[in-house]
Amino acid sequence: MSETYRGVGETMPVKVAINGYGTIGKRVADAVRQQDDMEIVGVVKRRPTFEAKDAMREGFPFYAAAQENVPDLEKAGIRVDGLLPELLDKADIVIDCTPKKADYKSLYEKHNVKAIWQGGEKHELTGLSFNAMSNYEEAIGKQFARVVSCNTTGLCRTLYPVQEKFGIDNVVAVMIRRAADPWDTKNGPINAIEPIVKVPSHHGPDVQTVMKGLNIQTTAVKVPTTLMHLHSVVVKLKSTPTSQEVIDVWSKTPRVLFFSTADGIKSTAQVMEWAKDVGRKRGDLFEIAVWKDGVHIVGDTLYYYQAIHQESDVIPENIDCIRAMCEIETDKFKSMEKTDRGMGMIKE
Amino acid sequence: MSETYRGVGETMPVKVAINGYGTIGKRVADAVRQQDDMEIVGVVKRRPTFEAKDAMREGFPFYAAAQENVPDLEKAGIRVDGLLPELLDKADIVIDCTPKKADYKSLYEKHNVKAIWQGGEKHELTGLSFNAMSNYEEAIGKQFARVVSCNTTGLCRTLYPVQEKFGIDNVVAVMIRRAADPWDTKNGPINAIEPIVKVPSHHGPDVQTVMKGLNIQTTAVKVPTTLMHLHSVVVKLKSTPTSQEVIDVWSKTPRVLFFSTADGIKSTAQVMEWAKDVGRKRGDLFEIAVWKDGVHIVGDTLYYYQAIHQESDVIPENIDCIRAMCEIETDKFKSMEKTDRGMGMIKE
Amino acid sequence: MSETYRGVGETMPVKVAINGYGTIGKRVADAVRQQDDMEIVGVVKRRPTFEAKDAMREGFPFYAAAQENVPDLEKAGIRVDGLLPELLDKADIVIDCTPKKADYKSLYEKHNVKAIWQGGEKHELTGLSFNAMSNYEEAIGKQFARVVSCNTTGLCRTLYPVQEKFGIDNVVAVMIRRAADPWDTKNGPINAIEPIVKVPSHHGPDVQTVMKGLNIQTTAVKVPTTLMHLHSVVVKLKSTPTSQEVIDVWSKTPRVLFFSTADGIKSTAQVMEWAKDVGRKRGDLFEIAVWKDGVHIVGDTLYYYQAIHQESDVIPENIDCIRAMCEIETDKFKSMEKTDRGMGMIKE
Amino acid sequence: MSETYRGVGETMPVKVAINGYGTIGKRVADAVRQQDDMEIVGVVKRRPTFEAKDAMREGFPFYAAAQENVPDLEKAGIRVDGLLPELLDKADIVIDCTPKKADYKSLYEKHNVKAIWQGGEKHELTGLSFNAMSNYEEAIGKQFARVVSCNTTGLCRTLYPVQEKFGIDNVVAVMIRRAADPWDTKNGPINAIEPIVKVPSHHGPDVQTVMKGLNIQTTAVKVPTTLMHLHSVVVKLKSTPTSQEVIDVWSKTPRVLFFSTADGIKSTAQVMEWAKDVGRKRGDLFEIAVWKDGVHIVGDTLYYYQAIHQESDVIPENIDCIRAMCEIETDKFKSMEKTDRGMGMIKE
Repeated sequence: MSETYRGVGETMPVKVAINGYGTIGKRVADAVRQQDDMEIVGVVKRRPTFEAKDAMREGFPFYAAAQENVPDLEKAGIRVDGLLPELLDKADIVIDCTPKKADYKSLYEKHNVKAIWQGGEKHELTGLSFNAMSNYEEAIGKQFARVVSCNTTGLCRTLYPVQEKFGIDNVVAVMIRRAADPWDTKNGPINAIEPIVKVPSHHGPDVQTVMKGLNIQTTAVKVPTTLMHLHSVVVKLKSTPTSQEVIDVWSKTPRVLFFSTADGIKSTAQVMEWAKDVGRKRGDLFEIAVWKDGVHIVGDTLYYYQAIHQESDVIPENIDCIRAMCEIETDKFKSMEKTDRGMGMIKE
Repeated sequence: MSETYRGVGETMPVKVAINGYGTIGKRVADAVRQQDDMEIVGVVKRRPTFEAKDAMREGFPFYAAAQENVPDLEKAGIRVDGLLPELLDKADIVIDCTPKKADYKSLYEKHNVKAIWQGGEKHELTGLSFNAMSNYEEAIGKQFARVVSCNTTGLCRTLYPVQEKFGIDNVVAVMIRRAADPWDTKNGPINAIEPIVKVPSHHGPDVQTVMKGLNIQTTAVKVPTTLMHLHSVVVKLKSTPTSQEVIDVWSKTPRVLFFSTADGIKSTAQVMEWAKDVGRKRGDLFEIAVWKDGVHIVGDTLYYYQAIHQESDVIPENIDCIRAMCEIETDKFKSMEKTDRGMGMIKE
Repeated sequence: MSETYRGVGETMPVKVAINGYGTIGKRVADAVRQQDDMEIVGVVKRRPTFEAKDAMREGFPFYAAAQENVPDLEKAGIRVDGLLPELLDKADIVIDCTPKKADYKSLYEKHNVKAIWQGGEKHELTGLSFNAMSNYEEAIGKQFARVVSCNTTGLCRTLYPVQEKFGIDNVVAVMIRRAADPWDTKNGPINAIEPIVKVPSHHGPDVQTVMKGLNIQTTAVKVPTTLMHLHSVVVKLKSTPTSQEVIDVWSKTPRVLFFSTADGIKSTAQVMEWAKDVGRKRGDLFEIAVWKDGVHIVGDTLYYYQAIHQESDVIPENIDCIRAMCEIETDKFKSMEKTDRGMGMIKE
Repeated sequence: MSETYRGVGETMPVKVAINGYGTIGKRVADAVRQQDDMEIVGVVKRRPTFEAKDAMREGFPFYAAAQENVPDLEKAGIRVDGLLPELLDKADIVIDCTPKKADYKSLYEKHNVKAIWQGGEKHELTGLSFNAMSNYEEAIGKQFARVVSCNTTGLCRTLYPVQEKFGIDNVVAVMIRRAADPWDTKNGPINAIEPIVKVPSHHGPDVQTVMKGLNIQTTAVKVPTTLMHLHSVVVKLKSTPTSQEVIDVWSKTPRVLFFSTADGIKSTAQVMEWAKDVGRKRGDLFEIAVWKDGVHIVGDTLYYYQAIHQESDVIPENIDCIRAMCEIETDKFKSMEKTDRGMGMIKE
């Protein structure tokens, strides 16, 4: 941990390290740079891919995961500023974006640095799973936390305010999952639909790590597309609001955006086009996309569709989680607003 | 209508005409030929595509829809045996497999011929929607009927025996729909998921045209694959059977087949490979594919996944519907067994 | 045409109108704004799609194509500043990005405004086809021009310098074409390869409209992907350079960028990821992507692969074409450099 | 080797073993069964997949590759008739359809059995690569041979008769390769085009193992489809025939079939639909599909497109190779005709 860190009331920017500069890591690095109360002290990468070169171009101090990675990195023209352990001594908090199989927890403990893992890890690793809207307060001052996965984040963002306002009896959500990220050309299927025969899928129990006691069942299928996940959600409510009342609640919910087929936004493809048009770096959509004309109340049951940008919706959650763990801000709404303003999110 | 037709007790094979020799029409023609109590008296096609040539190669009498189609057909080397009206005079029943926009009902009435339409048409066209298992008896002796669509057929096949045996409180089914048939290269999307924002999707009400009073809600999304539809179904039961008891019921249900991920059948692609391996013409799967290891009972709720071969699951239903309407057989189980034996269906 | 336009030596920014604010139009508008010698005076759109709302958010004066479009636009909350004819009176040049079937040439003539069309149009429409590197000079002072299509632009960019330096005996290029743009969810195929049986495909003759006399044959196939086109090019040279000498030429060629499978850029997907990472708006790649380790000389024959971002590679060409036609700059290299600096292109 | 085998003039059916009952193995087994001069004495499989169950259903004697595989197989209900070495003692020839990494050559030598490998293996393994049309005679009486890959088979089938009749100066062929087989849901890409940057791709040199001295260059790209490969071929001829003369040659060439976009066969998808319609088991197309309206002569250069059914075009080659190696037939045309008649190939 950095020597300058003093905890609550800290006025120096929090020093953030990124372990793993890939899909999530590079986005968290960008987002940290857009905030004035935190800064990147270094990023860690093993291999000299185009993403390593991107880190260099962005001007981030570059650390190798281990000495054995240094020769290959340097041969590819990358300037290595040190190794992971040195970086941990300079950082207040490390964002672990390494693949699931990597295990750095004891190293982080040894260097007395706070750490945030991503949703690929199990809840048990930290005992604390995080979603800003649902349980920001739980993370305040903690050493270790896990930001829940993209799908779980999406479910929490829309279900939490519905639970607060109308009460939820039970939820059935079907996840139609993109099979690979746009850059991932190894994985298929090219032309098939694959059911995840385990029921419930891991998403339901994962939601319950942050929304304790919610009655939710989830199933999942994998489909041959790369852009976004899509959820078909059915919620039995404890009250009987109109569709408009539900829409009104989400209109005020941070990180939930409405789209409409009437505007030509008929699928995940046009949602992504919209995100490109508004000028988001990488065409990212940090918000959950809800189809306004897909929100229906039938009796006491709410039906809606939402799309999840798997590469980016958890990024603002990481920022908020840093704030909570480092005790920069104790009010979740203030943190979210600061995060969102820095990241250029629009709430029309 | 053919002059030889005498109704109940008929011993001559029923004379069947196919209007529209495309995806469904060519398969119904094959299936009729596999039965000993019916025969094809002619098929109708407008344009000289490779499917028209296929009809000729198969040796079916070939009729043009109208005189204006004859020159193009003959130029392409197709021997035209007459026009649709002439064929209607030779047939007892016509299977209408024309695109939705075509309207031949008054012509069929004028020629006093029975007719079966496909699921693309509305229930109101005939006032009678058909699924062999669910309401065979309703079709007996009728002049006009509609075989429900591939997805509706799939839902009826698995829900009807569950309803009979365990009672159903309500159903939520999410249809993950293939966006185009394998031969259809015009339609996309190539890389997107498209929610059908209308809720319920048309499938739920369509199921209710044959399973009256069933409490069912359906939503649907379109995904970029061509092989099969896949359903994620959640059924609240009126009793609490075990998963095994549900499996036992479907084991005895005609036209429902179990597959298992343990055998390497992990997606719609391997289901289709299986159908090719068993030697079905065109690699068709007339049965509904249910993942045995995807059947789960949690409390009073049943979860399961099924895959639907959109091009062929309605074919045996058309055969049974012919039998019911022409009063060849009044027992649904006997008709289904005869149909299935002729078509080479396996029930392991 | 705007009254303030004075031709050569003009110091006022050139006034640019965009007719058709879609895939190309919105990008040209962005690019014009990044230059200091031209400005957008208005954009034209028919329907109130999300792209129309994007134009409003970007702050561009918004014109309807015709009076009949105004009610729908206003109902959707779009402020309409006037109609196309009014805009033409304010503009020095109009960039026509309307669909192929639209025909505005006589209207542009009537309003005495210069106009640039896109590659979907035929050469004959203007008699002048444009590629900055190949024939900038031809466009100087002209009233009408056509910027050639994305694929033709790509071929010209890499073939022109090879022709200049080494001489070309003949070219065989096979275009593997993406079947639809990422936002286009109507068009397929989802799972097929479609040959364009007409030989040569239109690309070869189209290259010859700017590189007169080049001996080039092209064939084309359509494949189910949305990201980029890919070309496999075989060039019989008049001399026998080494691969390195060819690479050296392209290293100095504007708008040609090298990628390498060794860096993990193995397909069009990773090229697009790179473009997102460097922060291009919409993740665009204005340059042609050439695989450095795919450049091979065998005897007198050059083999290479290049990828074309169909939505954006023609954008800088439109900017240069404006400069040439409006006589702001007569040196092609100076124009290209100014364009590229404004648009943030990297030449490492 | 079976004790009854007596070589030339043999009247007993040749005893064939299949080592590896997957994509190729199961098809060769079917094809052998359709010939009257050979028979299957057993098939070998390691794991109890649905394909193992298919072998059992087909009634083929089933052998495990090794003792260690037996428990899993038997647990899954498969009756194991013995192990591979026992089978080799009963067989005259073994068709090795195992994955590339497996190496059984020394075992085959030890058991003194003839063997045929598939195109995934290197030429050097056997020193003899086989294509019935191009070099049937070379295989007569040999112990080991390799049937060349699906793409190489396709190139040989159309190039050999052109070479014979018109003379070939040089060939440039671009392979647009399907990325995965229909049943293979692991491999991507889902949405990208991947160039094989090595030039020439392995196909050109592979063609030269059977058509010695042919001047051919090949490049290849991988595209997200599962149905067929497609080739764009450019052939500089030593003479100047008309397109019709080339078409006439292929009309008489075994295992080459014409299709036409005018009949609605616009892509690989409709070719596959045609194969389903004619009733081929698994919808296979053993022939090479050439677009008749894609055959063009420009000067001394021939352009054409052909599609290759990767799962099945090599099957008849395996049958002919058995005949040549076991000296049942020394005339290539007689063998091919017998094979094709048995397999139900159509030559319209």
